[in-house]
Amino acid sequence: MIKNDWGFAHYPMIPGHEIVGVVTEVGSKVHKFKVGDNVGVGVIVDACRKCDQCVNDLENYCPERIDTYNGVLPDGSLTYGGYSDIMVADEEFVIRWPDNFPMDKGAPLVCAGITTYSPLRYYGLDKPGLHVGVAGLGGLGHVAVKFLKAFGTKVTVLDISPDKKSYAIDTLGADGFILSNRPAEMEAAAGTLDGILDCVSVVHSLQGLLDLLKPHGKLVVVGLPEKPLELPIFSLTLGRKMMGGSMIGGLKETQEMIDFAAKHNILPEVEVISMDYINTAMKRLARGDVKFRFVIDVGKTLKAD
Amino acid sequence: MIKNDWGFAHYPMIPGHEIVGVVTEVGSKVHKFKVGDNVGVGVIVDACRKCDQCVNDLENYCPERIDTYNGVLPDGSLTYGGYSDIMVADEEFVIRWPDNFPMDKGAPLVCAGITTYSPLRYYGLDKPGLHVGVAGLGGLGHVAVKFLKAFGTKVTVLDISPDKKSYAIDTLGADGFILSNRPAEMEAAAGTLDGILDCVSVVHSLQGLLDLLKPHGKLVVVGLPEKPLELPIFSLTLGRKMMGGSMIGGLKETQEMIDFAAKHNILPEVEVISMDYINTAMKRLARGDVKFRFVIDVGKTLKAD
Repeated sequence: MIKNDWGFAHYPMIPGHEIVGVVTEVGSKVHKFKVGDNVGVGVIVDACRKCDQCVNDLENYCPERIDTYNGVLPDGSLTYGGYSDIMVADEEFVIRWPDNFPMDKGAPLVCAGITTYSPLRYYGLDKPGLHVGVAGLGGLGHVAVKFLKAFGTKVTVLDISPDKKSYAIDTLGADGFILSNRPAEMEAAAGTLDGILDCVSVVHSLQGLLDLLKPHGKLVVVGLPEKPLELPIFSLTLGRKMMGGSMIGGLKETQEMIDFAAKHNILPEVEVISMDYINTAMKRLARGDVKFRFVIDVGKTLKAD
Repeated sequence: MIKNDWGFAHYPMIPGHEIVGVVTEVGSKVHKFKVGDNVGVGVIVDACRKCDQCVNDLENYCPERIDTYNGVLPDGSLTYGGYSDIMVADEEFVIRWPDNFPMDKGAPLVCAGITTYSPLRYYGLDKPGLHVGVAGLGGLGHVAVKFLKAFGTKVTVLDISPDKKSYAIDTLGADGFILSNRPAEMEAAAGTLDGILDCVSVVHSLQGLLDLLKPHGKLVVVGLPEKPLELPIFSLTLGRKMMGGSMIGGLKETQEMIDFAAKHNILPEVEVISMDYINTAMKRLARGDVKFRFVIDVGKTLKAD
């Protein structure tokens, strides 16, 4: 037993919250699933089920939501995540996996997918004819580009890595690419975007992104820099621009997202690995050497690359 | 002739952009007004009249809008504002003053009024049943409270000055008052507001205000701190909150606002002064000694207090 940063005593953490698998057993009151069904579990495994958020299918904003791993259950015990060959979950927090939709490649959608899909819908950046930017082409960003192309928007990718240009344009079908650390490229694109999904998780310039927006444009943040960002208020007021946040999505919308992804064949880029590769994978992750998600073949049912 | 901060040579500035008066002369093509009409002029006196913003009645966001004072006209000359006994303006940028609506008290509405009215409408903080905060009870804030009460919302005022509590509650009819520099009062109100209109023009804590919002709440900024504010991104994402800016309003909406104000008898608190009091007034303004706007009786048609 160890203590975490907040002083709570707990057993070592079992991580993992982009989980797919096959139902092997169901309780007597389960009606949504049967043995043999393909399913997914995302970031949360329970919530209070009665607050305003829960009754509006927004369990992800319930103050009593319980995280899939290291979440605290009512009896004080902790939840265990997907780095395991078995998992018990409440059917209300389980996603039905679409028929014939790849489980390995699709797994990251239950976090990375819903994290980008939900705000694009909520903030209205899903309309054909809009021109939407995606800042940060990583695990979240590349899925966002795929959703946006399926929505019918024009998409421009922003990243600091020139290597990603051909992937963005040629593979993902983005309409444009801007090196966001090159002032001349940023200035040339000023005032051209209706919205931006900001997936950048390190400290970066909000003014640079806000300047890219047309009047009344929207900057939606889903990346999570640890330190506060600087916000020059004039950047919001002069063009009546807005910034919005978003965090994953509710269970109903997560099901809608996965069904939409299956219909439009939206699949993240993944590298399937075996469990005994995990320590190497973590080291590669720390230096950004993954395109774009590792998926662990915990059950040894897939052929690892 | 002097040079301003940007190095442009110009003649001394004639300020003033909350202007009311009586039409004394009209051009041969003028059809909206006749001699004797009461009118107002706000923050802008022209725009390109053909861009997306202008054709959508959002001249205030036209990149070529011309400010009422110290704006640059196409011939390079500067516009002169309301500290003058006569003014020439294009009828399209003149507001029709409602019958029997006081011109002295109403004058600040053509800037302070539209600056608060427009975002409350645009961001949907005008619905009965909502609970809206107004941060900073000054020239903008006190007018915002009056509009919100007319819209039928519950209103809580936030300010750092305890002196303003009785004015907020007893005179303006606010439903609550929070000393925003008292952490205990702020914490007690966490998660209770649907929206906040932030009229504070000095550096202040955005996190403090965002924490007051319910999930999906809106923080709308119209004050203009000169330095960037710190924005902790978690404050936006965890509850899918948003921040929006806004800057005055278009001519059509300014007319709508003044008609609404007349219908609901919404009038700013003003202190009418004579022109020869202006230097004293400026000194009082610098130390915040005004409640809440000085109105200069340029034409000597009003009895100064």
